[in-house]
Amino acid sequence: MADFIHSTDTELKKRLEFLMTIDKMKSIYRQTLLTDKSRRETDAEHSWHIAVMAMLLAPYAPEGVDTDRCVKMCLVHDLVEIYAGDTFCYDEKAGMDKEERERLAADRLFSSLPKEDGEELKNLWIEFDKQETPDALFSASLDRLQPFMHNMLTDGHTWRKGKVTRAQVEKRAGVIKEGIPAVWDIVCKMIDEGEKKGYIS
Amino acid sequence: MADFIHSTDTELKKRLEFLMTIDKMKSIYRQTLLTDKSRRETDAEHSWHIAVMAMLLAPYAPEGVDTDRCVKMCLVHDLVEIYAGDTFCYDEKAGMDKEERERLAADRLFSSLPKEDGEELKNLWIEFDKQETPDALFSASLDRLQPFMHNMLTDGHTWRKGKVTRAQVEKRAGVIKEGIPAVWDIVCKMIDEGEKKGYIS
Repeated sequence: MADFIHSTDTELKKRLEFLMTIDKMKSIYRQTLLTDKSRRETDAEHSWHIAVMAMLLAPYAPEGVDTDRCVKMCLVHDLVEIYAGDTFCYDEKAGMDKEERERLAADRLFSSLPKEDGEELKNLWIEFDKQETPDALFSASLDRLQPFMHNMLTDGHTWRKGKVTRAQVEKRAGVIKEGIPAVWDIVCKMIDEGEKKGYIS
Repeated sequence: MADFIHSTDTELKKRLEFLMTIDKMKSIYRQTLLTDKSRRETDAEHSWHIAVMAMLLAPYAPEGVDTDRCVKMCLVHDLVEIYAGDTFCYDEKAGMDKEERERLAADRLFSSLPKEDGEELKNLWIEFDKQETPDALFSASLDRLQPFMHNMLTDGHTWRKGKVTRAQVEKRAGVIKEGIPAVWDIVCKMIDEGEKKGYIS
């Protein structure tokens, strides 16, 4: 693709080519509406948003969380969607083969980088996905919190679209309780208000 | 705007409200085209892109650069455009009052945060803009390199649009020589190729 990159440093060349490949993140549209309701947000925009959240909510991260590392985890957590596409979180059918699709996409994407970088990014993605470490729990919480807040500002757009129940929303929000407990009470009140306004069925 | 955020922690509330305000970064369109030429990229997408570049090009940062800090600087370097708008870098007329517009925008934007956070973000933005520290030089270089590479993939879109001369491009690229010398030779070859292809007048 990027045949204008002339260098004898093949590792640098690979990195720059990868950095042009990931421009595709700007063409993958998520279900979440912008807060002005004008259109759906892209994967790149979402990743930027939660990375800034990791910066701004750092003082509220549980002890042991490396928020600088979380910023980076947030930036790359959705990169595999370049080849796997975005899967609507409330679409159970699409979710069934998500793991396999994303594993294949990760192999394809990260192998285009110099070995060490590729493995580092892949490991960050795997760690995020497993939601076991404090860093992954914090980052995954932001990945839930951001679209939740968007829902509150867009008449419950994705909740209505997915005909989502309170139980489903609570399950999806669950990680926040552990990942960033300081906002848990706010999230509970959001869910209450969302139900009262009819956003949640 | 975000009246669904119920908390007695006013600092946390301010942070969350700010995080919803910055959603506007997804509605500010830059001149740069996506590499597939389908549309112009948004400020949020651009900020995400150069933050990932700071991660991936970290091994090529000059000694003394704190690349983790640069990732964060890249994420917030354009936030003032929420109130100041994007200024086309090759539009000299629009550039004349840019400084004043952005200073006022910064005061308005960052004062909505708890004092310490607001000052931290404002200082990061000022540092980026001044291009004096190694961190700012590295970050600003990525801010130049990304649209340069996009130009090479979009038939010189913004260069043609601004009827840009080789001298203007070289001036704009200049910071890269110091900020990330490892890619300087690649950039020079890009400019040569851009001129040969008629992207630069």
